[in-house]
Amino acid sequence: MTPISDALDSQIQHKIDTKTKPLGSLGGLEALAYQVARIQNTLVPEMKRAHMLVFAADHGAVEKGMSAFPQEVTPQMVGNFLAGGAAVSVFCRQHNVPLKVIDVGVKVDMPDHPLLAQRKVAYGSQDFTEHAALTLEEVNTALGVGADEVSNVVSQGTDLLMFGEMGIGNTGVSSCMLSAISGQRAEETTGRGTGLDDEGVSQKSAILTQALNRASTSLNKPIGEWAPWEVATQVGGLEILAMSGAMLRSAELQKPFVVDGFICTVALLFAKQMQAHVVDYAIFAHQSGEQAHRKLLNEFDARPILKLDLRLGEGSGAILAYPIIQSAVAFFNDMASFESAGVSNAT
Amino acid sequence: MTPISDALDSQIQHKIDTKTKPLGSLGGLEALAYQVARIQNTLVPEMKRAHMLVFAADHGAVEKGMSAFPQEVTPQMVGNFLAGGAAVSVFCRQHNVPLKVIDVGVKVDMPDHPLLAQRKVAYGSQDFTEHAALTLEEVNTALGVGADEVSNVVSQGTDLLMFGEMGIGNTGVSSCMLSAISGQRAEETTGRGTGLDDEGVSQKSAILTQALNRASTSLNKPIGEWAPWEVATQVGGLEILAMSGAMLRSAELQKPFVVDGFICTVALLFAKQMQAHVVDYAIFAHQSGEQAHRKLLNEFDARPILKLDLRLGEGSGAILAYPIIQSAVAFFNDMASFESAGVSNAT
Repeated sequence: MTPISDALDSQIQHKIDTKTKPLGSLGGLEALAYQVARIQNTLVPEMKRAHMLVFAADHGAVEKGMSAFPQEVTPQMVGNFLAGGAAVSVFCRQHNVPLKVIDVGVKVDMPDHPLLAQRKVAYGSQDFTEHAALTLEEVNTALGVGADEVSNVVSQGTDLLMFGEMGIGNTGVSSCMLSAISGQRAEETTGRGTGLDDEGVSQKSAILTQALNRASTSLNKPIGEWAPWEVATQVGGLEILAMSGAMLRSAELQKPFVVDGFICTVALLFAKQMQAHVVDYAIFAHQSGEQAHRKLLNEFDARPILKLDLRLGEGSGAILAYPIIQSAVAFFNDMASFESAGVSNAT
Repeated sequence: MTPISDALDSQIQHKIDTKTKPLGSLGGLEALAYQVARIQNTLVPEMKRAHMLVFAADHGAVEKGMSAFPQEVTPQMVGNFLAGGAAVSVFCRQHNVPLKVIDVGVKVDMPDHPLLAQRKVAYGSQDFTEHAALTLEEVNTALGVGADEVSNVVSQGTDLLMFGEMGIGNTGVSSCMLSAISGQRAEETTGRGTGLDDEGVSQKSAILTQALNRASTSLNKPIGEWAPWEVATQVGGLEILAMSGAMLRSAELQKPFVVDGFICTVALLFAKQMQAHVVDYAIFAHQSGEQAHRKLLNEFDARPILKLDLRLGEGSGAILAYPIIQSAVAFFNDMASFESAGVSNAT
């Protein structure tokens, strides 16, 4: 992975600072413009074509009681994405962003559809309270599918990748991966997901603790000290790993990508274990209602665009933030400078 | 002013709650959809046509040293709005929103332009450290101009009004109005504006204190106890009052409007002194970097859409939030329900 060039940094900042506005007054929008111009290594960045990739998979441990929704909702919602009725479908239509769904591990076979990529790695993961969730081969295949799908989109031409996910139970799986990577106990990383009550959260946290204990015993290492491939095989999820692979490939191909909510942020954390520079390409869409998300965002020094208490996933927060990212590039390209507009600057 | 009908409240909430998403998971977007549907009193709201009105005026006290920018910047920036080079111009173009600038009190004559309404009430306000800022007739005329401009737009057809302002020194004038209304000392309501340093903030605060003391003595009433017309004449600003008038007329005509940053929020606070129900029509775009804004938003129980640390004004935050408001209406109208999509709900 090539680090982003700093050759234009001072010119990019100068262009931002000479626009007809008080210095720094566009706040987070200025940081977005700076990031996109650096990644594209140009003083005239483009933000016209974006693509949404939604990865779907199931999770074996759901049968233990990790979600307010039954597992059959995963394929049902994939059908809803494809039919255009889900939130992410509606918002992609609003912004003319093509949506593609990638089945990397739904527990049942999905009928063919022009917007669906059949890339099933397995019929869901194994129950991680009992066994390792995935084989190493499955992990590598999932990472590779995410990467492939990004390469496909980039070969068609794109300015921005957006990633989403669907998989009943995957907020819990993300909490488990976060615990495994960071060493925080499950109580600290577990939240309400799609709408658990206090009892449901306790139950989920107990399930995750069971999985983490089982794996720590098996690996003979405490959480926080596992290698990335150990995290992925022991407690990973296929759609989460596919997103990590997609993020890594986006960064390799020097394309910015949008990080949606908690699950996507955990996918980024996993990707970062493999390549630290991947974070330079990440645009953080929003701070969600999931309790561990704020802390994780702080660790990335993230400055999320939206604060709407979203907790839906699907990439819905990413696509909501897209017009703001376009606004950042628009002000950078199209605003007048003090000199060109004949406006006096601050004294 | 007719209060918003509650006839459809339960049907609107039911429509939101049966969409294919966990209950409440679209967070602030759900509140926006609910508000717009209630205001339009329909289960199929529209959010296709919006209009931006930017009010411009000057402030006599600027000569005492309230801003990092010289007063000549007010007409220069009006020219920049009209030429399409300002942030608000760029973002309005991005979203196909017509922009109109209304001169209610710029200190110099502005040349005619198709996008400029020549509605000058006075050549700026008087220096409020020395005298009352405005006459009662000027206050009423400014309120009326704002109202008129909204009526014009509504007669053309619109789903949403957005208001912005330009006037060197008007963050300070807003702080002064906020102190006069709320009874908070100037130290509590004064911030950096477009970019003052600590010394500049202290100087501005001292100027505002001088104005508040002069007026309190003249009225023989402490701050916090002035009547609305006393606030407006003693320490008001023409573009701020025009925005208050515009907000009141929007609410009368049952049109939602977007509140931009600190200055617009103070205009809303002033409007609320006259008609409490005006707040029901207000959509809060963002929480700005101006220190008093957060507290003021909390007093309105506002849930601003963006958290980008903007501090530019012009209506720039309002127009940035517009696509998100459209997304709220889009999910409400276009998402599938659990029943229509055949998706299982939570247990």
